[in-house]
Amino acid sequence: MIIVMKPGASEKDVGAVLRHAEGLGGRPHLSNGQRTAIVRVDGDDLRLDGANFLALRGVERVIPILRPFRLASRESRPKDTVVRVDGIDIGGGTFTVIAGPCAVESLEQTLETARRVRKAGARILRGGAFKPRTSPYSFQGLGPKGLEILSRAKAETGLAIVTEVMTAEDVSLVAEHADILQIGARNMQNFNLLDACGRQKRPVLLKRGLMSTVEELLLSAEHILSRGNTDVILCERGIRTFEKYTRNTLDISTVPVVQKLSHLPIIVDPSHAAGVRDYVGALARATVAVGADGMMIEVHPHPEKALCDGQESLTPDEFDRLMREVRPIARAIGRRMGR
Amino acid sequence: MIIVMKPGASEKDVGAVLRHAEGLGGRPHLSNGQRTAIVRVDGDDLRLDGANFLALRGVERVIPILRPFRLASRESRPKDTVVRVDGIDIGGGTFTVIAGPCAVESLEQTLETARRVRKAGARILRGGAFKPRTSPYSFQGLGPKGLEILSRAKAETGLAIVTEVMTAEDVSLVAEHADILQIGARNMQNFNLLDACGRQKRPVLLKRGLMSTVEELLLSAEHILSRGNTDVILCERGIRTFEKYTRNTLDISTVPVVQKLSHLPIIVDPSHAAGVRDYVGALARATVAVGADGMMIEVHPHPEKALCDGQESLTPDEFDRLMREVRPIARAIGRRMGR
Amino acid sequence: MIIVMKPGASEKDVGAVLRHAEGLGGRPHLSNGQRTAIVRVDGDDLRLDGANFLALRGVERVIPILRPFRLASRESRPKDTVVRVDGIDIGGGTFTVIAGPCAVESLEQTLETARRVRKAGARILRGGAFKPRTSPYSFQGLGPKGLEILSRAKAETGLAIVTEVMTAEDVSLVAEHADILQIGARNMQNFNLLDACGRQKRPVLLKRGLMSTVEELLLSAEHILSRGNTDVILCERGIRTFEKYTRNTLDISTVPVVQKLSHLPIIVDPSHAAGVRDYVGALARATVAVGADGMMIEVHPHPEKALCDGQESLTPDEFDRLMREVRPIARAIGRRMGR
Amino acid sequence: MIIVMKPGASEKDVGAVLRHAEGLGGRPHLSNGQRTAIVRVDGDDLRLDGANFLALRGVERVIPILRPFRLASRESRPKDTVVRVDGIDIGGGTFTVIAGPCAVESLEQTLETARRVRKAGARILRGGAFKPRTSPYSFQGLGPKGLEILSRAKAETGLAIVTEVMTAEDVSLVAEHADILQIGARNMQNFNLLDACGRQKRPVLLKRGLMSTVEELLLSAEHILSRGNTDVILCERGIRTFEKYTRNTLDISTVPVVQKLSHLPIIVDPSHAAGVRDYVGALARATVAVGADGMMIEVHPHPEKALCDGQESLTPDEFDRLMREVRPIARAIGRRMGR
Repeated sequence: MIIVMKPGASEKDVGAVLRHAEGLGGRPHLSNGQRTAIVRVDGDDLRLDGANFLALRGVERVIPILRPFRLASRESRPKDTVVRVDGIDIGGGTFTVIAGPCAVESLEQTLETARRVRKAGARILRGGAFKPRTSPYSFQGLGPKGLEILSRAKAETGLAIVTEVMTAEDVSLVAEHADILQIGARNMQNFNLLDACGRQKRPVLLKRGLMSTVEELLLSAEHILSRGNTDVILCERGIRTFEKYTRNTLDISTVPVVQKLSHLPIIVDPSHAAGVRDYVGALARATVAVGADGMMIEVHPHPEKALCDGQESLTPDEFDRLMREVRPIARAIGRRMGR
Repeated sequence: MIIVMKPGASEKDVGAVLRHAEGLGGRPHLSNGQRTAIVRVDGDDLRLDGANFLALRGVERVIPILRPFRLASRESRPKDTVVRVDGIDIGGGTFTVIAGPCAVESLEQTLETARRVRKAGARILRGGAFKPRTSPYSFQGLGPKGLEILSRAKAETGLAIVTEVMTAEDVSLVAEHADILQIGARNMQNFNLLDACGRQKRPVLLKRGLMSTVEELLLSAEHILSRGNTDVILCERGIRTFEKYTRNTLDISTVPVVQKLSHLPIIVDPSHAAGVRDYVGALARATVAVGADGMMIEVHPHPEKALCDGQESLTPDEFDRLMREVRPIARAIGRRMGR
Repeated sequence: MIIVMKPGASEKDVGAVLRHAEGLGGRPHLSNGQRTAIVRVDGDDLRLDGANFLALRGVERVIPILRPFRLASRESRPKDTVVRVDGIDIGGGTFTVIAGPCAVESLEQTLETARRVRKAGARILRGGAFKPRTSPYSFQGLGPKGLEILSRAKAETGLAIVTEVMTAEDVSLVAEHADILQIGARNMQNFNLLDACGRQKRPVLLKRGLMSTVEELLLSAEHILSRGNTDVILCERGIRTFEKYTRNTLDISTVPVVQKLSHLPIIVDPSHAAGVRDYVGALARATVAVGADGMMIEVHPHPEKALCDGQESLTPDEFDRLMREVRPIARAIGRRMGR
Repeated sequence: MIIVMKPGASEKDVGAVLRHAEGLGGRPHLSNGQRTAIVRVDGDDLRLDGANFLALRGVERVIPILRPFRLASRESRPKDTVVRVDGIDIGGGTFTVIAGPCAVESLEQTLETARRVRKAGARILRGGAFKPRTSPYSFQGLGPKGLEILSRAKAETGLAIVTEVMTAEDVSLVAEHADILQIGARNMQNFNLLDACGRQKRPVLLKRGLMSTVEELLLSAEHILSRGNTDVILCERGIRTFEKYTRNTLDISTVPVVQKLSHLPIIVDPSHAAGVRDYVGALARATVAVGADGMMIEVHPHPEKALCDGQESLTPDEFDRLMREVRPIARAIGRRMGR
């Protein structure tokens, strides 16, 4: 940690900083610069909470040296994490496709979608049984009945299942039916939920909050990892900006940034980012080319009847076309896609 | 609801829209404009979910007429809601001051702060027992022991208590100790928590998410109101922007916007917005003048020893000064402040 | 244009709206909905400025039907515009690579870079002679001398030249040396400059402002087009968000959005978006795959000695590698790259 | 300047950094921390451009110690700058009100507005003769004729005049008619214009770009100051965020932030920030209370006929009311308002 003193800071102020650092178990080193004093503090950055130093008189800035996440960092584990679920690898050179409806609405709708996306090359079925909805008047999902339908779809098609869990209480129920537990963007900093997912065995798909930084995404992953669950898949799904032609702004740079800073696999959800069906194909091509470990696509047999997000869902035929477009790109950059 | 068709939309496309609207119980009216057809649909906007229409061929845009929140809207209740807690009014022409430490750290720290802020004119004590922290390595709060300390502080000083509840499971425990339940910015869209707070009797202080629009804030209030709890206090605490000299950007316009659209009281938290002690006073003055119903200020007897947010906490002496600054402004605009 | 009246609007209010519309040459049609009156106004939307209606009593919202840009829109010209410069096509199925240093610093630096990027497959040389710099103390470019150097580089390598023009006064001077005039992100709404570039013959490369919407980008293009110059190339270069690991957030969705709404070619500048050399390669791959018409890459023979943006510049060797990575992707999606 | 090396940086890498710093005239001091080397470089930060160091191998981060603006900084001039124009002080404990129409449309409109705002207590008349407009089809201002009208209004009412200048070429013409030259938000980084305004004598009102940080605002002021003009007034007018109920988000914190970092006076434009007439009053009250040196309010005798921004313009009667509301607040915080 580096502490930069204000130009006018007194010796007494500097002394207080040195003592404060020592009191926290740090080893401070004073370096008197041309215009201002600088204190380098060696020791455990996680314990030396920067905010406290800022509360001392004469302190201008506190600059942490280490990144605030540890277990999620590339330094702690140089090799890529590969999450293995039901014979499917996420990470490690594959490109894994997750597809399915926004919400589970009925057995027929789910099965029809599952069969089609499987045929087109998806390996994992998505579908919400518990739906976080901004409005209390929107469809909130079928709940446990939705989970049963997902289990049926798995039994019939062999697809693995990913579905959202919204609260710590539901974690064990959802884990009975799902191969991967999804934590939605709005819950990225629901720390009780993160902890509950960290204490069980299923892999976790952690979506980036729509106004969270990549650092915060990695810190939320750290919550899960620090509870003992090492199977975390990150997911970029668009952030909130001032741009209005798309629902969110897909931050495609997240992929190389995460790959540099962390060993965790990272996938992309172009459907939620675009919010408009017409743009999903182009964003999916970018997702493969940028080097993501997979993607998540909303597919619905009858988007105009969908109970949520119909405007961004592809029909099965459109999904077929999208898969035909992305395969040659995967090949061009040397990524394996199932089948 | 208004549906604008694309310029090239066919009669068949328009027909499908009309039938779709009728199928949802709406009454569509076609209006053929110069360049494009427009369909006005009368009926219950909340049921006529816009997204579905967007999934139909030839539809360019769907424009809801009604605001998506109802119970929270000024139309549903023209008169201001006044939340009454422990003899204190929030709303209705008063300016209520909430003050206290970011986190409850010890009985001494809490009592010392409580006595000083009460003497300066605060009516409600804030202090976190459960702390949502971005990093799993930061202080997470004293938990139930912190709640006990708050109860002691109430018994000794007569201040009402507001404290954060982070998960639906803890609602009844927190409600035993707190007069007002706080839902933090990161949990503004934790819908299970909103519902649980809506099903109990304590007033709820709902903080705007740092990535949320005012419309979403009102929709989250709607979740609580629709469960039966009408005592909701809104709180603006800064939003995330590209500006870096402050931790967040205090969106002061939220106050008049909420007052126009809703009957719910709205307060401001300048401490979290600024993130820097030096700016809290000026923002507090703006808060009173803009017409907010109250404010929430972080105060700590020894900010440099604070376990969280020391850099933005005022000392009790600084808080005294701030109160002396805001009183004449409250008087100038005709707001009553306790004592 | 659609005007939505407030629920309580009086007949008199509605009457004033109808008369106001007629006064502006519009043909208003009243439609009394369930809760509120709606007025559809046919006529020339560009003359019917919505803001005025908003100033009338009882008006809730004004919704334009037509997009505010015309000449730039796909409707006005369904076929893709292909900008032809010096035998090079931009748009129409090609993928054109522009490369070179941030700033022209010397003849040697420019020639060395030009030769290397040409050999690797770039068709156009970039390099700033006039540099807009946030700080008045930064290097501001070599000015006219820089332009001479660019002309020399063109003579020696055959590369076409694109360089920034910062003010209307300099347009003719820059046009003598450059094949394409660049309008930088900070000048995207410098309307005098847009007009001056619109009144001359050279193609214009218009960069999106770092906090401008795509709609505003297209409106700025409209300024140029409406002065008579039809050769406009749009460029996405990252927008400002709260994310900090990258300098800007590359809004890759701009490519399909522009391609849907407009006929103008669109390229991407991954170097300025990332601001960090390590991410340029991945973003370049995404750029090709998403379907852009080209890209612009910063290359410097000695980035550590660069007078600007060294941290995001590739060395010529790194650029070679990047070109080897993007070629197979261009092939996979059927885009032609020179040589 | 502080340079933090990557954990794995070699001695050779560190050596290259030391030599690079010396080459630029800096005096580097190596400090070997626990996990990484840190180099403090004394010398002229403005010459030691951080970007170059980042291009060197092994460099993790470059942290400037000094703020990048000098002449605009509080350090360079501890006392507040008071801009004196036509007997009016801006800064130094006064609260100066600027009011008038968005655009000069006619002599009658201008005179009517001028007389009314003067009577209500405004000291300076605003009104655009040259209007930067996003759309090429919008009213672009009366140009030189508008300047003549402003001169007439000054002659008749004694109000000082502030009006926008859009291009370096027009600076001397505008300076003949205006007491203060306004640089609009879209031109905040039009460096040629900044320089031209810096080379003449009239005070400059510099509006913050809607996409600019406060640091960039101060750097743009630095451009003007460094050319010799010390009379710069800063203006906060709202920034672009994701919030939609207001046109922009008024960043009220800019006032205390600027007052801490700089000696320049800072005023606020609540009209452009809100974009909605209903919110202007509340934001004006906040503006006074936060401690701004003045404000700028749009007033039009017939907003529904305004050629721009009618929806946010107050009528003269509404402006009277606003002035009656802000006076007691100015008194409460000890600010002098003319008359």
